[in-house]
Amino acid sequence: MDVLDVLNLGEIAQYFSKMAMFPVFDLAYYIVSILYLKYEPGAVEVSRRSPVASWLCAMLYCFGSYILADIILGVSPVDYFHNNSHILLASAVWYLIFFCPLNLFYKCVAFLPVKLVLVALKEVVRSRKIAAGVHHAHHAYHHGWLIMVITGYVKGSGVALMSNFEQLLRGVWKPETNEVLNMSFPTKASLYGAILFTLQEANLLPVSKSMLICLFTLFMATSKVFMTARHSHGSPFALIESWVCHLLFGSPLGIEDAHDHHHPAPAAAPLSPAKTKEELSEGTRKRKSKKAE
Amino acid sequence: MDVLDVLNLGEIAQYFSKMAMFPVFDLAYYIVSILYLKYEPGAVEVSRRSPVASWLCAMLYCFGSYILADIILGVSPVDYFHNNSHILLASAVWYLIFFCPLNLFYKCVAFLPVKLVLVALKEVVRSRKIAAGVHHAHHAYHHGWLIMVITGYVKGSGVALMSNFEQLLRGVWKPETNEVLNMSFPTKASLYGAILFTLQEANLLPVSKSMLICLFTLFMATSKVFMTARHSHGSPFALIESWVCHLLFGSPLGIEDAHDHHHPAPAAAPLSPAKTKEELSEGTRKRKSKKAE
Amino acid sequence: MDVLDVLNLGEIAQYFSKMAMFPVFDLAYYIVSILYLKYEPGAVEVSRRSPVASWLCAMLYCFGSYILADIILGVSPVDYFHNNSHILLASAVWYLIFFCPLNLFYKCVAFLPVKLVLVALKEVVRSRKIAAGVHHAHHAYHHGWLIMVITGYVKGSGVALMSNFEQLLRGVWKPETNEVLNMSFPTKASLYGAILFTLQEANLLPVSKSMLICLFTLFMATSKVFMTARHSHGSPFALIESWVCHLLFGSPLGIEDAHDHHHPAPAAAPLSPAKTKEELSEGTRKRKSKKAE
Repeated sequence: MDVLDVLNLGEIAQYFSKMAMFPVFDLAYYIVSILYLKYEPGAVEVSRRSPVASWLCAMLYCFGSYILADIILGVSPVDYFHNNSHILLASAVWYLIFFCPLNLFYKCVAFLPVKLVLVALKEVVRSRKIAAGVHHAHHAYHHGWLIMVITGYVKGSGVALMSNFEQLLRGVWKPETNEVLNMSFPTKASLYGAILFTLQEANLLPVSKSMLICLFTLFMATSKVFMTARHSHGSPFALIESWVCHLLFGSPLGIEDAHDHHHPAPAAAPLSPAKTKEELSEGTRKRKSKKAE
Repeated sequence: MDVLDVLNLGEIAQYFSKMAMFPVFDLAYYIVSILYLKYEPGAVEVSRRSPVASWLCAMLYCFGSYILADIILGVSPVDYFHNNSHILLASAVWYLIFFCPLNLFYKCVAFLPVKLVLVALKEVVRSRKIAAGVHHAHHAYHHGWLIMVITGYVKGSGVALMSNFEQLLRGVWKPETNEVLNMSFPTKASLYGAILFTLQEANLLPVSKSMLICLFTLFMATSKVFMTARHSHGSPFALIESWVCHLLFGSPLGIEDAHDHHHPAPAAAPLSPAKTKEELSEGTRKRKSKKAE
Repeated sequence: MDVLDVLNLGEIAQYFSKMAMFPVFDLAYYIVSILYLKYEPGAVEVSRRSPVASWLCAMLYCFGSYILADIILGVSPVDYFHNNSHILLASAVWYLIFFCPLNLFYKCVAFLPVKLVLVALKEVVRSRKIAAGVHHAHHAYHHGWLIMVITGYVKGSGVALMSNFEQLLRGVWKPETNEVLNMSFPTKASLYGAILFTLQEANLLPVSKSMLICLFTLFMATSKVFMTARHSHGSPFALIESWVCHLLFGSPLGIEDAHDHHHPAPAAAPLSPAKTKEELSEGTRKRKSKKAE
């Protein structure tokens, strides 16, 4: 009976990992992504002033992962745009979210129960993208483990990693922060997922790829649905991260809070403040000579 | 007689569309482009402080379209720079415009009648570039209609689409605007031209490619010569655009005026201000939860 | 005896130019590069707040030349990252410099005699990179002389040419300056070296490639060691450059001093102030009409 159960689980995982993303799951991905674009300050105004810029931003939100992964692997950045049906669907979603009469479509998809379902479906796509990214990188660089991690990472994070430049397109410039310096939960999870999938590709994990896709999807969907429903700030990784960072880097990771951008918390940084002062003054002197060199 | 006329017109269009751009038309393109670079605030100073930076900016102005199109299609961005004669000619124009004794060369080419001829010749090159861009993209992606439009668009717009970064090279940074957010006439015309040439490539326009090149060139050259001669602000597209935008997006397109950067004209944006306020407050609440997610 | 001497010198040059850079010379390159990263204001704090961002910056410092050259030649920008051993070594250096207990490693490598040796070894790598960059570009574009110069230039300059964006990764944004506008000594020397190696590749220099590598390395190592030891500001090129710039561009090159960013030295710029005023007013008028066009 156990063997039968395992076979069934394996088959379910296999079926799940091969399931087509288009159109249902991809549709959910586009809706949630463009919803987040609409939340951005000034995005609605941009859609009125310059529909082309707004549409371009929406395309970056929907397909940013493919663009970044293609840049990483040296392929044409707009390669994914030959999928006309995908582009049409995303454009339709953009139009409905920004310009639907009486804002009907927005109200439907922003209704919490509907939104939770869409968020869960989006995480299915994200997990699949990370796995596909690692797989493509493995195909190009058989032993380029770091390249696989990077590719999976950008496939999972998508537009978040180019947020500075996507905002620039809308006339917004916030250089003091970026998604690598202050990682949000999805970006962190994409990084960890990329590492897991790379370990699996290197046969260092005792689990099949389809099972890993299943488990990771389950984790991501559950976390995101929970966080969306509760408007929660807490990251599931916070505890493990502070333990690892304290071990490796001698200090806890900065808290994922907007306040951190303005209060870099000097208390959190140095192990030996005296040493840092010494380094700072030495650094100033060295910088002057470095400028000379 | 009509058939003979048509044959002649077709032959003229054919000959015109196959005519070599180098060196006469390309020379005009370089002169007008680098003239516009010289008009930029601080450009002359940069040429004195750092001739390398100034020369690099001039190359971006002259060959930006090729660089962008190569990036789009996944080719080496400096591929065009193997045309040594083109680079030499553009460099010579840069040197003469910025460093000619008594500024003679600049005075010659800035003399209005001469400038109008050069502007017309430049538009011949622009139209040809858009057609070539769409053609190359079609060769790479037979059904990538959006890719063809994008490639034609960047070929026509050239350095304008990377103006933020070209300015950054000169130490100038203006993130509040860019050429997609506030399209100038040449950039808009390049977009429309790219769409037309893509429709023609898809055999959806009842006109041959050479005839379309001819007609589009005629339109562009006439418009630009007229606008240059009259220092006019009006765009030929303004009427149609406001009608289409009102139909599709519920509001007229923002006026192409520098003042718009500072007065985003809230009156122009919302159809229902009450709804926007509701969305705004909802958006603020959602952004906080989005940050958590 | 003379022929024997020449043969020996040629053989020495040959052996020197074929010597493996990994692991000794590359290690020195990584140490010096990441040392300079540590000197940057805020870099230590970033390493505490976001080790991933700090590590990424360190990788840009160590491998920026390969990334830029790959972008130039249309190859995957992360192609070099398949060299797992190199990445591991650079990562180990980053960890030791930023997180070694009691800061021991930093104190060792920053000790001046040790640092001078490392700086000299780094210049060996730089010279080799410039030669390799020119060679690869020659392989891709047999007569693309400018492409060869550009590729050698970016291979030699490395992260300096993308300093604005590397700083952006750390949350720092300084658009008023960049490495092309205000070239530091290594960047200038890389440009001149790239030109020399390109001339040699075009058989216009009466010297073999290995001899040129030897001589250029000797020059670079000596200059950098001297400048590091004396915390000197003077560039060896200053005299020749001011002579050439006065001849070609009518004014001396701006002094390589931080003050120049704030005092653009109007006295250094125009040959005829009256003409510049005339151009400026004409430029303002033209800019308005350009905006219209």
